Amino acid sequence: MSDISALWEAESIAVIGASERPGALGRKPMDYLLRYGYKGRILPINPRSPEILGVPAYPNVKDVPGRVDLALIMVSADRVPGAVDDCVAAGIPLAIIASSGFAETGEAGARLQEEVVTRARAGGLRVIGPNCIGAVGYDNRVMATFSPLFGALNVPFEPGTLAFVSQSGALGFGAASLALERGLRPGWVVSTGNDADVTALEVLRELAKVPAVAGLLGYLEDTPDIEGLRELAASDKPVALLKSGRTEAGGRAAASHTGALATDDRVLDAALRQLGIVRVDDIDELIDVARAFESVRRPAGNRVAVVTTSGGSGILAADAIERYDLELSVLRPASKEALAEIIPAFGAIDNPVDITATVLSDPSLFDRSLDVLIADDTVDIIVACFCVMAGPDVEKAVTSLAKAAEKGGKPVLVARTGADFLAPDASRDLRAAGLPEYPTPPRALRAAAALWEVSRPRAATPPAAPGTDAGPGLGATEPELKQYLAGAGVTVPRGRLVHGADDAVRAVREVGGRAVFKAVVPGLLHKTEAGAVEIGVTPQTAPEVHRRLAALGGGVLVEELVDDGVELIVGVRSSDLGPVLTAGLGGVFAEVLDDVGHRLLPLRPGEGAEMLSRLRGARILAGARGRAAADTEAAAGLLHRIDELTRNWPAGFELDLNPVRVLERGRGVVVLDAALTRRAPREVR
Amino acid sequence: MSDISALWEAESIAVIGASERPGALGRKPMDYLLRYGYKGRILPINPRSPEILGVPAYPNVKDVPGRVDLALIMVSADRVPGAVDDCVAAGIPLAIIASSGFAETGEAGARLQEEVVTRARAGGLRVIGPNCIGAVGYDNRVMATFSPLFGALNVPFEPGTLAFVSQSGALGFGAASLALERGLRPGWVVSTGNDADVTALEVLRELAKVPAVAGLLGYLEDTPDIEGLRELAASDKPVALLKSGRTEAGGRAAASHTGALATDDRVLDAALRQLGIVRVDDIDELIDVARAFESVRRPAGNRVAVVTTSGGSGILAADAIERYDLELSVLRPASKEALAEIIPAFGAIDNPVDITATVLSDPSLFDRSLDVLIADDTVDIIVACFCVMAGPDVEKAVTSLAKAAEKGGKPVLVARTGADFLAPDASRDLRAAGLPEYPTPPRALRAAAALWEVSRPRAATPPAAPGTDAGPGLGATEPELKQYLAGAGVTVPRGRLVHGADDAVRAVREVGGRAVFKAVVPGLLHKTEAGAVEIGVTPQTAPEVHRRLAALGGGVLVEELVDDGVELIVGVRSSDLGPVLTAGLGGVFAEVLDDVGHRLLPLRPGEGAEMLSRLRGARILAGARGRAAADTEAAAGLLHRIDELTRNWPAGFELDLNPVRVLERGRGVVVLDAALTRRAPREVR
Repeated sequence: MSDISALWEAESIAVIGASERPGALGRKPMDYLLRYGYKGRILPINPRSPEILGVPAYPNVKDVPGRVDLALIMVSADRVPGAVDDCVAAGIPLAIIASSGFAETGEAGARLQEEVVTRARAGGLRVIGPNCIGAVGYDNRVMATFSPLFGALNVPFEPGTLAFVSQSGALGFGAASLALERGLRPGWVVSTGNDADVTALEVLRELAKVPAVAGLLGYLEDTPDIEGLRELAASDKPVALLKSGRTEAGGRAAASHTGALATDDRVLDAALRQLGIVRVDDIDELIDVARAFESVRRPAGNRVAVVTTSGGSGILAADAIERYDLELSVLRPASKEALAEIIPAFGAIDNPVDITATVLSDPSLFDRSLDVLIADDTVDIIVACFCVMAGPDVEKAVTSLAKAAEKGGKPVLVARTGADFLAPDASRDLRAAGLPEYPTPPRALRAAAALWEVSRPRAATPPAAPGTDAGPGLGATEPELKQYLAGAGVTVPRGRLVHGADDAVRAVREVGGRAVFKAVVPGLLHKTEAGAVEIGVTPQTAPEVHRRLAALGGGVLVEELVDDGVELIVGVRSSDLGPVLTAGLGGVFAEVLDDVGHRLLPLRPGEGAEMLSRLRGARILAGARGRAAADTEAAAGLLHRIDELTRNWPAGFELDLNPVRVLERGRGVVVLDAALTRRAPREVR
Repeated sequence: MSDISALWEAESIAVIGASERPGALGRKPMDYLLRYGYKGRILPINPRSPEILGVPAYPNVKDVPGRVDLALIMVSADRVPGAVDDCVAAGIPLAIIASSGFAETGEAGARLQEEVVTRARAGGLRVIGPNCIGAVGYDNRVMATFSPLFGALNVPFEPGTLAFVSQSGALGFGAASLALERGLRPGWVVSTGNDADVTALEVLRELAKVPAVAGLLGYLEDTPDIEGLRELAASDKPVALLKSGRTEAGGRAAASHTGALATDDRVLDAALRQLGIVRVDDIDELIDVARAFESVRRPAGNRVAVVTTSGGSGILAADAIERYDLELSVLRPASKEALAEIIPAFGAIDNPVDITATVLSDPSLFDRSLDVLIADDTVDIIVACFCVMAGPDVEKAVTSLAKAAEKGGKPVLVARTGADFLAPDASRDLRAAGLPEYPTPPRALRAAAALWEVSRPRAATPPAAPGTDAGPGLGATEPELKQYLAGAGVTVPRGRLVHGADDAVRAVREVGGRAVFKAVVPGLLHKTEAGAVEIGVTPQTAPEVHRRLAALGGGVLVEELVDDGVELIVGVRSSDLGPVLTAGLGGVFAEVLDDVGHRLLPLRPGEGAEMLSRLRGARILAGARGRAAADTEAAAGLLHRIDELTRNWPAGFELDLNPVRVLERGRGVVVLDAALTRRAPREVR
């Protein structure tokens, strides 16, 4: 038993603040532990009662003989530090602090919370909470919670394969109650409240190690740490997270600056996608996805065959397939021929396959059609849609579907658009057959998409090869930075710093007679706005431009003019989740349309190209509007090179390559401007 | 009784193909009419039985004495024409043809369908279907359907205020069964199948006239006609439509051509938005929106106050408010002060208002907080979110909410994230109090957004003032079209057709020394690609350019060069829904990003400006990237002018103004190129 797994494995639980008073919060865990048949020792702690609900009580947790695996602290906030000290003194490894009155109430509470955590850590006590509603684990009937959920009659709590961890206790147990009501089996529910010591993510990681856990679900309010996420993803168990607070991430307005484009919420989105963790936006969606996680079959691809008894359902399914980035399988001709033999003329043998309501009079239709689809190698996932089928019809359909799923090894999801009163056993039968069931085709397809998200083969994260060096240093000027990049094999415009007007004229000639002049003034960030850049300088205009730029007080850089190609912006910055690469098309795409992608570093092989291909403006690179195709290969190569180069740079930097020009295919990319800054303090957390 | 309202008002129903055989489809409507207590005459038609289920039968509908309001035809397809003839002969005004085997099966079926409709129309018989599952109306227990739904035990079918019309019978009755199960009250359900004569939209319009109908819901597969939609919208009853087949609308790839950008599905989207009809993408969403339609209060604006007992729910609600284009109300300072007096320190007095779980011990918290919110004039809609509240707590909350809704006259929606087994009476109580209830905050906010969509004040559609003329004629060349536009007060570049090289040089001088040359060759559409346009011609280069363009075989147009401003594309084309105006920024915005808006004509006052302001690239017009702000007022004016001008043009035209330059504020817009074509035949339906 690890410290944290005591949440579901504890063989002895102390309830500090246990009470017999009806209605008291401190009574509820006592009630639940007794009622649900907790198998270990129940240890009520109450200085005023020798027993609680017939269970011998102790005045203090220190008085308990033998080992205590878990303490549930339910006293008022001011008494929590003392209770924590007692737990430490008693050698308890883990405490759930359910009490409120900590960081969620303001400064004083935050100080109290810090004090409590400090004391606990010093004493070797891990802490869940404070401000949480506790935890339950079905297997050992650990009911270390005061959630009203378990006070209800007939709670359909039973052995399960889903684990759910929620920072919000109310939302967490509320969602769990909905999941139970809808026939899912969450066997573990943990609320972690303020995440002061143990975080929700840490609990998820611990649950991922439990062999019986088939799917992990989380509700998070704080941004999780990336190492924890990586470790969770590495468990290879499917994970879906509801992370709220999208709007609070701020920074919604687009900007020309790659750093400002990579808001925390977008970086998290990108990170979860990279890790194969599903992100959802609602509790219903979380439950729908969880239902698919309960089933064992995983898709080998994203091509869906829809089989339906109603044309309308088929169309809704096809719409949803497009919405969720799945593909409608194009069936093999042999499959269509076979279906034509089976399905009535007024059905459809093209995917969505409409076997029509004739299946009601000839149930073999369903079996035979499914046989065709499971044999077709263009089909990775089968979604069966039916409407208003009454009891016995559904029974037959379930049998056919279960057989097909078994035989084909492909995931089969069911959309049954009909009330339970039409087929009271349908949900139970589908569940027994391991077929996830949804009320509408779009919901089934959302879940199918999640299954594909967690099953998609992901190349292993590349070895964290050390970077080549520590970078050019944060004080590097533009010429220094470009020299550094050039040395690392990144193309920058030809050019050099010049000394005086005559030298400037010579430099213009050296780069071909038309040049860009830039003032090099340390700390000057918005060069164009400051009049520090002049484009298209000729030998004739060079002396005058040189005079003007030199007057700004720094050096003058003369470079060849590169005015063809597609503009790209590329940047790397630190984020709470680690270094993030941001890339997108320049100009209006970044500044007005926010058309950029984000990826946590390091990139996997191929990820640079994939990132560029997902831009809304990707067609520009491919050669839209009569342009020649751009050298996207070189552009992708630049992303990977920048990834490698920055790997060892000191934390807190922000590199901005803006613009980069992607020339015609075969001609490479040129970094026209580069800046390296320390990330603004207000952005560093 | 109108012909169509016989679907719910019929005082006599003939069932053609009625049967006593258990399991036969023709038995079901007989069963249902009898079981549900239909109040009118039941008239089974069967040539072989003198009675069906104890009801006297007739060999033919023509043999029935007295008036028959509605015939339900359930014979096989080949016998339908005869049955229709019989109905005509019997003087019946409306028949539901439930039988399949018509247009849905292919060509032969389509011909049969056409024959049937022709015969019916000639005989004054309106037809619902074919290929449908019939209709039900609760009030008079009209059960003219064979849907298995009504064969179930304990169908919670009761008086209702919702009317649901579906082209798909299976999906329609399936959705209706879900609605019933979830406690909604659909009092009318009509399936219209192939919509061969009476369309789903026509039935919806008829239902809009029924005083007891509070909300209208539709599932459509065919694109509805615009006059019907306008009439439906004019009924002022809230309408939500699920229109499937988004992906089949095709034309997803963006294009430079305004016509190709206005796909049928997008035009429908725009039309529904203009009309204040809610469009949904799933059956669940339709049911959620319908639930809000059942309640009577309507919002005066889109500002939402969230009151919650769980911080987590509040954050989810705030995220959803942003997603659904609502606003989180910024409460008045006095409201916050009042809330600070009421709510515990660890709650939140800023919206979302978190009254905390303390409400469980002090239920007055809820009442007092709600009083503050209903008195605050920054609040248009109240969404109350609570989790896992058990029976008695919910009861108190419902009482408070009902009182607040009553007192404030503002819509109050409830997100109760908890299983029914926790509070078995909650749904019933909320329903009784007229408070729409949802399982999660995002679902409540989706419904709140729909309430706002149907309540938003819409300026009356402008009088359909006749256009000024019949347009320039479809054969008009570019100079003719521009002359026409100039005559109508639209600015085009100065310029003229030239005669010979010397005249070309003169013309260049007339327009300022730098010109654009264009070959005017009727039928030549892609001028730039064909080398028919030359920009920046000087008096020196004019003779050579003139020679080259003249060689293309037409005239040569010389125009002033307008190379500043923001590029816009504007077009008008016919669509199934009527003439559509499409406008967007030019260049990559239209060609790569598909950033255009569509509006059915005529525009309402202000709609041109609103359309431009909703473009993703609207910031470009406002002066992003250091540009001066463009003359958006003039651009909007152009849209309205084009609307007026084209009002009387012959159907089937496509006008493409591309590009239009929007100059700096105060300087107006210039139409640089204009083309008028007949819409390609494959696009005309």
